[in-house]
Order: sequence, then structure tokens, then C-alpha cells
Amino acid sequence: MAKQIVGPEIERLVQLLAKLPGLGPRSARKAALALIKKREDLLVPLNAAMTTAIERIVICGLCGNVDTMAPCAVCRDEARDPSVLIVVEDVGDLWALERAGVMKARYHVLGGHISPLDGVGPDALNIPSLIERAGDEAIKEVILALNATVEGQSTAHYLTELLVDKSVTVTRLAQGVPIGGELDYLDEGTLAAAIKSRKQV
Amino acid sequence: MAKQIVGPEIERLVQLLAKLPGLGPRSARKAALALIKKREDLLVPLNAAMTTAIERIVICGLCGNVDTMAPCAVCRDEARDPSVLIVVEDVGDLWALERAGVMKARYHVLGGHISPLDGVGPDALNIPSLIERAGDEAIKEVILALNATVEGQSTAHYLTELLVDKSVTVTRLAQGVPIGGELDYLDEGTLAAAIKSRKQV
Repeated sequence: MAKQIVGPEIERLVQLLAKLPGLGPRSARKAALALIKKREDLLVPLNAAMTTAIERIVICGLCGNVDTMAPCAVCRDEARDPSVLIVVEDVGDLWALERAGVMKARYHVLGGHISPLDGVGPDALNIPSLIERAGDEAIKEVILALNATVEGQSTAHYLTELLVDKSVTVTRLAQGVPIGGELDYLDEGTLAAAIKSRKQV
Repeated sequence: MAKQIVGPEIERLVQLLAKLPGLGPRSARKAALALIKKREDLLVPLNAAMTTAIERIVICGLCGNVDTMAPCAVCRDEARDPSVLIVVEDVGDLWALERAGVMKARYHVLGGHISPLDGVGPDALNIPSLIERAGDEAIKEVILALNATVEGQSTAHYLTELLVDKSVTVTRLAQGVPIGGELDYLDEGTLAAAIKSRKQV
């Protein structure tokens, strides 16, 4: 960006917006311009929403979810099955499963996956607290809802070994053809998993 | 988004982020999560940058550029050619031309293009102030740097007619093959323009 025509204030706004996932340098400029042009409709409300987020949003010490109170609304929800713990990599995964709305259980957010290449070992994740929670006799099942990536699956493998001596059933998500998926567009790994885990109709 | 698990504060942050150009509902969720997770590195600085923008950024009454002072830095820049006025649709176009850095002139931001279908007539744009500036005897040339779209070109046509009785030369950007462009991928209109305006080597 031409430094001489855009003041440091706009420049800084653009640079920070470019750090958001999904925005690059060009779209950050567009976003900054949209904010400046829609001052009252967008810039002022978004600024206020961020101030609120800074003041009020905390991370739940129990499960790792984000909320305005700790323990979070999910952990405090008495209507949820207290015997099932769903382990996810990230808060976004928790949100995705809640949008699916198929299971009313509690969660445990690892905060990522084990990735030696990126220097992320088991110690960097919320694994000790998971093992502690899984030791609670109320927990009967731990569902490893990790990404079907190499890192997600090796993290799941690592957790399975840690949980083997706890009195819990460890399960993982089914793998197969996604709903609406066309076989022709699916990779061989997915098709192999779908054939291997085929079900009688 | 599942209302029951994400509090209204996060929900509002996501909804406002989704209004930014380039972010949809899904990427707005990712952006909100990134902001919450990178509280000190991203959320707090971006919030501060927005507060500064709200407090300090104004629209230049002379050319329509955005800056922290009015007249803006471009209008106050004595090193620029005072005889040339570059007319653009939007501030983003001004930034793009300044990045190209090929001409040190002053600008006039229309604030859009004439689009009867969207209810945008000439009255909604900064056209009267352009005609007034073009009437200044210091101005010798008005460059219509409008988009090469139907709306941009019809706006250029409209402006040309208004400027015909002023003592200024009205020019427009050259049309042709973009630098790095492959002929095979260009549309017929661009190729026709490039052939028509061919130059002797």
C-alpha cells in the first residue's frame, strides 16, 4: 500500500484485518474501506462488539469452550448426558457438532492436534485435563471427534492409548461417503473406508 | 449458529464480521474464533485501530478520499501536478492508481457509478463538485479512470457530455491486453479493443 496516500491509522487497520483468516492484503483493504464508508452501520457496532468480547469472553476452564461465563453454558447445561464426553480439536469443531445438534453431551476442547513438525507435542494440548475428566466414574464413553487428517488421526491414536486403562468406552466418528457426496469426486481413501465399513440394508 | 451454545456476544461479533466484504457466515465464525483466541495479539489491537478510525478518519470534502485530515494528504500535496484531475469511482480505485504510482495528480472520487437499475442516478454521486472543479482554470485535463464495465463506461459517457463545454481535455484509460495476459484467455471485447487501438512498434 502506498504509504504516502494512506495515513498510518488506515494502514494499521488494513494490516490487522489482513491477519483475520479468510482475508488477504487485497480483501483487507476492501474490508477497511467498507468499515470506513459504513461508519455508523458497521464500524461503530463492530468496534462495540469487540469491546464487549474483550471485556466479557472467557475460556471455560473445564472444557476449553469460549463463553461469557466459566464454566460455559455447555458445561452448566443439566439436560446434557453426563456420561458422554466428545473430544474435539478446536472450539469451531464444537460449534459445528452443536449445529448438527445430534448429541447432547459435554465436550473437551484439545486446543489443536499433535504435530511434531510444528513443534506441537502432547504437552501443548489440554490432554492431562482430559485424562482426569475421563477418570471420573460418571463418564462411560469418550467420543474422539477429531479431524480425519493425518494429525487428527495420530492424535486420536495417542489419546486411545492413554485412555485404555480408564473404565470408558473410546469411540471415533464413522468414516465414509459424506451426505450428498458423489462417488466420482471422492478420494480413494474415503471410498476404501466406506467399502470397509459397509452396512447391511 | 446454534443459539444455545454461543452467547449473544459472540453471535453478534460473528454477524457483524459477516458483513465485511470477503467474509461469509462460515469465514466470519472462523474470524471471530481467531479474534477470541488471539485476544492480545489481534482482538485488542484491532479494536484499538477501529476506535482510532472512528475518532480520526474523515472524508475529504474536496476529492472524496478518506484520511485523518481534510483536505486529505493527496489534495494538500504541493508536489502533484495541479492541472490534472483523475476521476475514479471509489477510494479503492484511488489507492490502486497510487500503488501503480505512475502519475502524481489530484483525484476526484465519484462515490460509485450511475446505475439506474440500482436507483443510483447522477444526483447520488459527487458530480456537481467535479463540474465545479473542472471549471477551475488551473485544470487542463480530466482523466476518466472509471471501471471498464457497462456502468463505469456509461458514467464516463455522461461525464464527457457534461464536461464538453469546459476548457479541459477529457481523456480515458487505454483499453487492451493486460500486462501478463494471455490472448487465449481474454474475452472478445478486450481483443477487439486491443486490435482497434493497436500501436506502431
